[in-house]
Amino acid sequence: MTMDFNSRVQKRIREVQSLVCVGMDTDPQKIPSFLFQKTDPVLEFNKAIIEATADLVLAYKFNLAFYEAMGTEGWEILKKTLAYIPNEIIKIGDGKRGDIGNSSEKYAQALFDLGFDAVTVNPILGKDGVIPFLKDKTRGAFLLCLTSNPGSQDFQYLKADGKPLYEWIAEKAIQWNQNNNCGLVVGATHPEELARVRSIASDLPFLIPGIGAQGGALEASVMEGTDERGEMAIFNSSRAILYASSGKDFAQKAREETIKLRESIQKVCERKRKGTR
Amino acid sequence: MTMDFNSRVQKRIREVQSLVCVGMDTDPQKIPSFLFQKTDPVLEFNKAIIEATADLVLAYKFNLAFYEAMGTEGWEILKKTLAYIPNEIIKIGDGKRGDIGNSSEKYAQALFDLGFDAVTVNPILGKDGVIPFLKDKTRGAFLLCLTSNPGSQDFQYLKADGKPLYEWIAEKAIQWNQNNNCGLVVGATHPEELARVRSIASDLPFLIPGIGAQGGALEASVMEGTDERGEMAIFNSSRAILYASSGKDFAQKAREETIKLRESIQKVCERKRKGTR
Repeated sequence: MTMDFNSRVQKRIREVQSLVCVGMDTDPQKIPSFLFQKTDPVLEFNKAIIEATADLVLAYKFNLAFYEAMGTEGWEILKKTLAYIPNEIIKIGDGKRGDIGNSSEKYAQALFDLGFDAVTVNPILGKDGVIPFLKDKTRGAFLLCLTSNPGSQDFQYLKADGKPLYEWIAEKAIQWNQNNNCGLVVGATHPEELARVRSIASDLPFLIPGIGAQGGALEASVMEGTDERGEMAIFNSSRAILYASSGKDFAQKAREETIKLRESIQKVCERKRKGTR
Repeated sequence: MTMDFNSRVQKRIREVQSLVCVGMDTDPQKIPSFLFQKTDPVLEFNKAIIEATADLVLAYKFNLAFYEAMGTEGWEILKKTLAYIPNEIIKIGDGKRGDIGNSSEKYAQALFDLGFDAVTVNPILGKDGVIPFLKDKTRGAFLLCLTSNPGSQDFQYLKADGKPLYEWIAEKAIQWNQNNNCGLVVGATHPEELARVRSIASDLPFLIPGIGAQGGALEASVMEGTDERGEMAIFNSSRAILYASSGKDFAQKAREETIKLRESIQKVCERKRKGTR
């Protein structure tokens, strides 16, 4: 019996007692310069970060833009990095893909074959664009619902029949979640809306970017973004962890930042469980 | 003086008298089997199609899903194919990318560095997700406005203040078109809506998929999708051209299909110019 993706997220959360996802948005221009003495500096950086944080994290998320920008080599680095991550950790490919049915099938094949357990999907093409990513119950898809950036104001808040677009998306996600492997992306920069989406999709895993460098409030987003048991939310932090130090101690400092973030989140979850807001 | 992207589209249309875009959605499982005697069958197929059609087309469009699904090798094939296309032909990377600002910058860098003149962009993340693709006036971005697939019904028709989402997108595209390099993707499967979007964005180039295998009506979409001079529309056909024959004559048959399509479109354009519908 293989487990469906959402159950696997819950299992990992309980085992590691962590809602932290490290965003592996590795930028060759930002990694410590001493690494360039090695033959494959970006891969070495990724391996060191993973070694230093694997026992602390629920997931790793890879923003595909950063790897595509490295050319063909970027895809090789991505593949090798994924192979280096222990099996029990959730590996998310953040590519925001989404196309008409037969093309989405190709994207799903490409990313799941590469080794990802889940992907982010732009749902605006609708059902036939999304379903190919949800066919295999062991792999997950997080649909963009409300993004963390300023431009989220342009279309995502447009109201039809009194409901903003992001609520329409959350409702469709529930309909399309026939295999218990669908989740939502909701930015930490909108805690009120996060509460609203959680009230619609009470059980789905939420991938929550925007804490740290983007300035989303941690406390409010943990309170509002987790499910009623203080679980099923995945908080992504990239720059604050990856570039905590530019020296030889970068991996150790990344570990310290990850511990800090994990503890901050756990404290809020405990308060939520005790019902003391 | 380098020309902005939209002027370049118009120039190529006038030079080649064609609104045809061949969609290079090459699927290794669909190309003629005799090609597998060669070392690089997909590249050989692409080169043969380009040789047979280059003098007839406005543009080539590459659906990135098909190349990603081939793994790292797919990106190498893509790069070599792009290098093989004569400079005056428009090369469109159809990846429907779109992310928060700093990630969209990386995607733009990746795709324009690869050799594309323009890309398709999913605009749902809003302004900061779109603008990085429009910074260089010589490169273009076609924003997804109304897609050709059945799932376009799920979100793209939602009405806010009496206007469907696709009209909101068309209006924003005009605002964001400061460098005369922004276009729209509007599916041929919706001729009435195509007319509506054309009335909003009278001058922008439209990339129009969905004729051929997807069943969009050619006549209506040429009438409604071109600008008032019967120009500034790019009609994409993939499967009907690429797989016109599975034999040794595949390139010749692809040429014949391309000629047929170009002529069918030109006839409608001429009727439109004469005002005889």
